[in-house]
Amino acid sequence: MSEFSLHPRLAADTSLIADWPLCRVLLMEDARWPWAILVPRRAGLTDIIDLSDADRALLMEEMARMGAAIRALPGVAKLNVAALGNQVAQLHVHVIGRHPGDAAWPDPVWGKGAPQAYDPARKAAILAELSKA
Amino acid sequence: MSEFSLHPRLAADTSLIADWPLCRVLLMEDARWPWAILVPRRAGLTDIIDLSDADRALLMEEMARMGAAIRALPGVAKLNVAALGNQVAQLHVHVIGRHPGDAAWPDPVWGKGAPQAYDPARKAAILAELSKA
Repeated sequence: MSEFSLHPRLAADTSLIADWPLCRVLLMEDARWPWAILVPRRAGLTDIIDLSDADRALLMEEMARMGAAIRALPGVAKLNVAALGNQVAQLHVHVIGRHPGDAAWPDPVWGKGAPQAYDPARKAAILAELSKA
Repeated sequence: MSEFSLHPRLAADTSLIADWPLCRVLLMEDARWPWAILVPRRAGLTDIIDLSDADRALLMEEMARMGAAIRALPGVAKLNVAALGNQVAQLHVHVIGRHPGDAAWPDPVWGKGAPQAYDPARKAAILAELSKA
């Protein structure tokens, strides 16, 4: 079995938050939404059903852990949680904080124009907040 | 605690496949993709983190069960799995079969124009197939 390595596109678009028991936990470089990406550190996976039963249970707990941290951020009204992977096949789960009136509401966030760069102080603050999860 | 009832918009857009231990399992009325919707039969839920730990584990297993059934259908290359709920707040999970060249590829399926009605024989066949899951 080959070793896990993060897809270069996911690496380029994110900053590291932490490694959790199953997932590498990343912050998407788009200040329009608090947006984490969870990547199970297993090689060769595309879909959630490719995980073992035990890893799938762990993924759900890590999705919930990040979901709770993001929903607790100021201004977040609800979550969007999704494993799509049409563009980057490596299994990864988006956990995104949404609110009515945000830059894509009520549509999904994907394909909504160029990402907005974080102000460095704001990025440091959200990384610190989500690192506590 | 109030009783579960299916949101009228979800009812209008789908056909019943089955009731599983946690979820009402529905087929989306859009022949462009094999597309199931899983709705936990609990009242007042919006996000996955609103479920109890036990129900969340059950939801993951039911997502995987439907995901395996859909990925086994002819022509399905991968899955899209998502809990969004920006338009219909009642917690529901999309499980969608995708392939390169489908009507939205590589974008997500939401917001891609009017649903395509099923041919009745094809709909009966897919309902029968997914009912076996």
